[in-house]
Amino acid sequence: MYVVPPALARLVADLNRLPGIGKKTATRLALYILRRPAAEAQNLAVDLAELHAAIKLCSNCHAFSESDPCAICDDPKRDPSIVCVVEEAGDLLAIEKTAFFRGQYHILHGVLAPMEGIGPEEIKVDDLLSRVRRQRIAEVLIATSSTVPGEATAAYLANRLQELPVRVTRLACGIPMGMDIKYADELTLAKAIEFRK
Amino acid sequence: MYVVPPALARLVADLNRLPGIGKKTATRLALYILRRPAAEAQNLAVDLAELHAAIKLCSNCHAFSESDPCAICDDPKRDPSIVCVVEEAGDLLAIEKTAFFRGQYHILHGVLAPMEGIGPEEIKVDDLLSRVRRQRIAEVLIATSSTVPGEATAAYLANRLQELPVRVTRLACGIPMGMDIKYADELTLAKAIEFRK
Repeated sequence: MYVVPPALARLVADLNRLPGIGKKTATRLALYILRRPAAEAQNLAVDLAELHAAIKLCSNCHAFSESDPCAICDDPKRDPSIVCVVEEAGDLLAIEKTAFFRGQYHILHGVLAPMEGIGPEEIKVDDLLSRVRRQRIAEVLIATSSTVPGEATAAYLANRLQELPVRVTRLACGIPMGMDIKYADELTLAKAIEFRK
Repeated sequence: MYVVPPALARLVADLNRLPGIGKKTATRLALYILRRPAAEAQNLAVDLAELHAAIKLCSNCHAFSESDPCAICDDPKRDPSIVCVVEEAGDLLAIEKTAFFRGQYHILHGVLAPMEGIGPEEIKVDDLLSRVRRQRIAEVLIATSSTVPGEATAAYLANRLQELPVRVTRLACGIPMGMDIKYADELTLAKAIEFRK
C-alpha cells in the first residue's frame, strides 16, 4: 500500500487540526504549498513561529495586541465610559469594521457553557466587574452572540452588573438589513415585532 | 481606525494566499491558532519549514517523495509495464485510495493550457515519451481529468504515443456509482450510452 511521504503527512495532519479544514482540504492545501516555491512555506512558517511571542493580551480589555495597553484602550479619541463586551477577538474585528462604535471593549474569551465546565471563572467575568468598579464606566453594551450560550452569558452578566451603578445594554435583535421579511425566521420576526419602535 | 496587530495581519495575509481561503476564513484560522497553545503554532511552523527540504520529485515518475526512486517505483510488487499518467500528486493519492491500480505512475505536474502559456515543454511530456522508449512499458493509462484541458492533454498524449509500440488507454467515462440516472448531466449520460458495454 502506498504511504504518503511522512513530511507531507505531518503537514496534512497539522492542517487537519484547524477548524473547518477536513482531511481532503488539508491534503489539497499541503500539496498546494508543496508545489509553490519553498520561500512561501518559509514565510508562513516564520509568521506562525513569531505569532504567540509578538501578540499578548491587553491587560485592560484582553484584546490581542502587540502593545499593552492595546491601541484601542490607549486611543484618547475612544470613549472609555462605554465598554462593549464581546465573546472573542473576531467579534471585536466585526464591530470595528462598522466604524460605528467609539467606546472600548472587553473580551471574555469564551461564553458560559456549564456542560463543558466553562463557568464564570473560565472567562473574564470577574475582571469585567472589577474594571467597572475601578474605572468610570457609564454603560456596558453586552454584544455576545444571539445563540443559546451567548444569551445565557448576557443574562448572567446583566445580573452580575445589576449591583453596580452602570447602565447595561444589549445589541438590538431584529430583521437583518436588506432582508426580505418573508425569508426571516420566525424567532427573528417575533423579536422584531416585540422590539418594534 | 483600529488596526489589526501586525503579526496577526501578516499571518492572515499568508493564509489568505492559500487556495479557497478567503479573508474571513484566514482571519478565523489565524485567531484560532492564536487562541491555541504556542506549541501548536510552532509545530505547524516546523513542519512547513521542513517540507520542501524533505520532499523531492521521484526522478522516474515525478511523484513527491522523500526517497528517489519513490516508494511506488521502488516496490517490486508494482507492475512497471503499466503506467498511469495523472495531472498532479493529488490525483495519484485519489487513485491509490482505490487500492485497485497496481502499476506505476507518471505525474505531468499540470495540463496543457496554451492560453496560459503552458505547452508540452512546461509539463512532463517528453519525459513520459522517453520513459516509454527506455523502459518495457506495455500500456499507458491516461488518467487526466474529464475537463476541457484534461481531455485536450489526453488527446495530445495519445497522439504523441501513437508512434510508440505501446497500448494507450483512457479512464472510462459514465454514470458515477450510486448515482440516480435522472440526476446525471446530459453530457455524462450521453457518454454512458455511447460507451455502453
